[in-house]
Amino acid sequence: MEMADIGLIGLAVMGENLVMNMESKGFTVAVYNRTGDKVKHFVEGRAKGKKIIGTYTMEELVKHLKKPRRVMMMVKAGAPVDALIEQLLEHLEPGDIIIDGGNSHFPDTMRRCAYVERHGLLYAGVGVSGGEEGALNGPSMMPGGSPAAWLHIREILQAICAKVDDGSPCCDWVGENGAGHFVKMVHNGIEYGDMQLICEAYQLMRDGLGMQAPEMSEVFAHWNETELDSYLIEITRDILAYEDGDGTPIVDKILDTAGQKGTGKWTAIAALDEGIPLTLIGESVFARSLSARKEERLTAAKTFQRQVTPITENKEQLIECIRQALYASKIISYAQGYALMRSAAETYGWNLNYGGIALMWRGGCIIRSAFLGKIKEAFDRDAGLQNLLLDPYFCEEIKKLIPAWRTVVATAVSCGIPCPAFAAALSYFDGYTSERLPANLLQAQRDYFGAHTYERLDAPRGQFFHTNWTGHGGDTSATTYSV
Amino acid sequence: MEMADIGLIGLAVMGENLVMNMESKGFTVAVYNRTGDKVKHFVEGRAKGKKIIGTYTMEELVKHLKKPRRVMMMVKAGAPVDALIEQLLEHLEPGDIIIDGGNSHFPDTMRRCAYVERHGLLYAGVGVSGGEEGALNGPSMMPGGSPAAWLHIREILQAICAKVDDGSPCCDWVGENGAGHFVKMVHNGIEYGDMQLICEAYQLMRDGLGMQAPEMSEVFAHWNETELDSYLIEITRDILAYEDGDGTPIVDKILDTAGQKGTGKWTAIAALDEGIPLTLIGESVFARSLSARKEERLTAAKTFQRQVTPITENKEQLIECIRQALYASKIISYAQGYALMRSAAETYGWNLNYGGIALMWRGGCIIRSAFLGKIKEAFDRDAGLQNLLLDPYFCEEIKKLIPAWRTVVATAVSCGIPCPAFAAALSYFDGYTSERLPANLLQAQRDYFGAHTYERLDAPRGQFFHTNWTGHGGDTSATTYSV
Repeated sequence: MEMADIGLIGLAVMGENLVMNMESKGFTVAVYNRTGDKVKHFVEGRAKGKKIIGTYTMEELVKHLKKPRRVMMMVKAGAPVDALIEQLLEHLEPGDIIIDGGNSHFPDTMRRCAYVERHGLLYAGVGVSGGEEGALNGPSMMPGGSPAAWLHIREILQAICAKVDDGSPCCDWVGENGAGHFVKMVHNGIEYGDMQLICEAYQLMRDGLGMQAPEMSEVFAHWNETELDSYLIEITRDILAYEDGDGTPIVDKILDTAGQKGTGKWTAIAALDEGIPLTLIGESVFARSLSARKEERLTAAKTFQRQVTPITENKEQLIECIRQALYASKIISYAQGYALMRSAAETYGWNLNYGGIALMWRGGCIIRSAFLGKIKEAFDRDAGLQNLLLDPYFCEEIKKLIPAWRTVVATAVSCGIPCPAFAAALSYFDGYTSERLPANLLQAQRDYFGAHTYERLDAPRGQFFHTNWTGHGGDTSATTYSV
Repeated sequence: MEMADIGLIGLAVMGENLVMNMESKGFTVAVYNRTGDKVKHFVEGRAKGKKIIGTYTMEELVKHLKKPRRVMMMVKAGAPVDALIEQLLEHLEPGDIIIDGGNSHFPDTMRRCAYVERHGLLYAGVGVSGGEEGALNGPSMMPGGSPAAWLHIREILQAICAKVDDGSPCCDWVGENGAGHFVKMVHNGIEYGDMQLICEAYQLMRDGLGMQAPEMSEVFAHWNETELDSYLIEITRDILAYEDGDGTPIVDKILDTAGQKGTGKWTAIAALDEGIPLTLIGESVFARSLSARKEERLTAAKTFQRQVTPITENKEQLIECIRQALYASKIISYAQGYALMRSAAETYGWNLNYGGIALMWRGGCIIRSAFLGKIKEAFDRDAGLQNLLLDPYFCEEIKKLIPAWRTVVATAVSCGIPCPAFAAALSYFDGYTSERLPANLLQAQRDYFGAHTYERLDAPRGQFFHTNWTGHGGDTSATTYSV
């Protein structure tokens, strides 16, 4: 019987393309899908004549695997993964490795990793980014889980993943249990942010400067040769140039209601839980939700009859300002995302390699960009960097970008074009670099109505004061608020 | 033996004050606290000579209660509530009523309500707002839980709660299981937003216009006679005028690091879960987190050496613009908060009375204001109002405020003063009233890299298209992404 190096379950587009990728690198792959038709369609179609073994039961799949068996699940996140694990545990044996390559939520992966380990098997939660193209030609892969699993999956993952210019694989061990899926989640959140920033730049050009898609395509083509050089800018260039059958830009015919699969939302929730201001990604998630309420927006547009004021400033100059605003905001977004990973690493006891993560994202994935090379360099300079903005390179970059950034946000605000991410980034920057914020007033308010106490500038930290502001609130402070 | 109308557990400031309030309305209250010292201190102090019975065991407490027994818990949210419920179930009997008056998270209240009901008792989760002052003199109360509980607690709650001018109680039945705590949570989120807006106005005056606390106190005194008339504006006026022992403003000596107890965070998470853009409250929660990172901000301030550009425009005029920007942003915040409640009501099957909620918040609580009367009127006009902005009154108000609002955000952005909530509110407004957002480009990107498909303007909703953008991505769309 022909034996496979790895088994893969779930033949949707990502699964199929990963199998093709593995096979092209010399691995024999056994495949299984809940509905057998898909297996048949695949092995008689794209997989024909290749070292790909179609199997129609879980038992058959497992029988075709070399030991220790490696099985990768590429199925919908959530209950289907738990169900598959149960089935696999029936057929596998101690020492085998279960790999989840889907977009699982990191707490689920933490739970599953412990569960599978209790059965004597190894578990890996692997973040896979790059979409269908990436899956086929080399995705970015972020593996975490049982440390011992890495030895068994490293060869295959590093063979199929993307490589950067010097040949380094965009796949390295991230950390224990849910670390891989956490980092993938943050990647997705950053992806939401990058896409929202591009959309805001696009809307300013479309609605403010009255530009058409082909002209904007040229702008993005130019931007792709600057610090913004990245996959998302590149595909935006191509999308804006893509013509529908009738020769008009297809982008103008697409409905403006964004979908989402929840990973951006998870990132924002993780940030709220960690107490890390992740404002740009938060606004990006909310912007998608707002776009989705199209009917309500149409009613509101009709009610308010609002007109955007056309921008009359020097067009070429403003386009360059928009580019700089996008770049500055992007630095903020990554600074916030890295701050979130830093905080989570402390919470969950992961020893994350931040430069290594930048390298994994440098190629193959949706957010791949030249920019990530600069982030890698920042962590090479200082592995313990507290915030990206404190790195000398990014600090100097931001300083150069500030005037254009302020101009763009002020312009958008004045002419009535929404710019939630540009504005959130700028407010974060202005807040982060402020010695004094207005939270002293807020603390006074909290103490006034809730006896929450406050600290003073002229007293040591950790010493709390309560003022009886009204003279009749009682002398019990809320710090004693326990049974 | 003297019998009490109600028992109260937890003698921190809120609990003590609620007991004093109940007693002042003619109710006899039995009190219990885990540490007996607090009971002794209370009954020999503030409670001396009043119809307040100190008890030192749970058994003793229960023995002193008229049937059906009513026991109100005023303890720290979380595990202490569950532990107390277990103890109470040992001593109470079917038909008795357990009331949680703490800041419990609504999913916990949903769970506990079902649990207590399974034991044959009734449960009420009551949101209580108004801080220590409110607890003593009349809080706003938002009761939800077992519908049958309302009959037994209504008399006491409506006696002790705040009343609006016409005598209506700021307490009415909200809905089943967790509805009361959900509405209280949104109240708290809105409170975060209101406080952040005041802080941003304050910072613009302090750092942009160089104003001192006493002068700003006068501004808030004036604002309190306008549409902004509210408790929080009023206490801000008083706080800014409050002098420390040495005759200087105490607010200038308070450390600018905001604390939080998590209810604002819960509101933001609920919004992310519901897919409702709650951007202003989200930014307000993150602004508190950012303020708390004081040491890091000091480092960043030193690194960037950034100066705020003083505002040189007409001062009086700008102050009025700031007032209008605050008012406009506040309308947005409430519009977002009400949209969240509307969505949650659908998710959890609550039949919320939105006008009634405005009335409950109209007096007694931290966000009480004249403004809430206007919201009540809007829902009187249209109980099914989809969004506050679509109400004719608020629509006309916003229209008048737009120019000043844009001026203030553009000014803050230009001179380098963070205004995350003002800016988020404006971006939301500009997005909400936009017929076309840039999400068409975003959908094209998602389809390009992930085969996520899109809808078209020239095709019926619900019909999805996939373009093979690169010509070599494969013909499998991600909609088939299942095992």
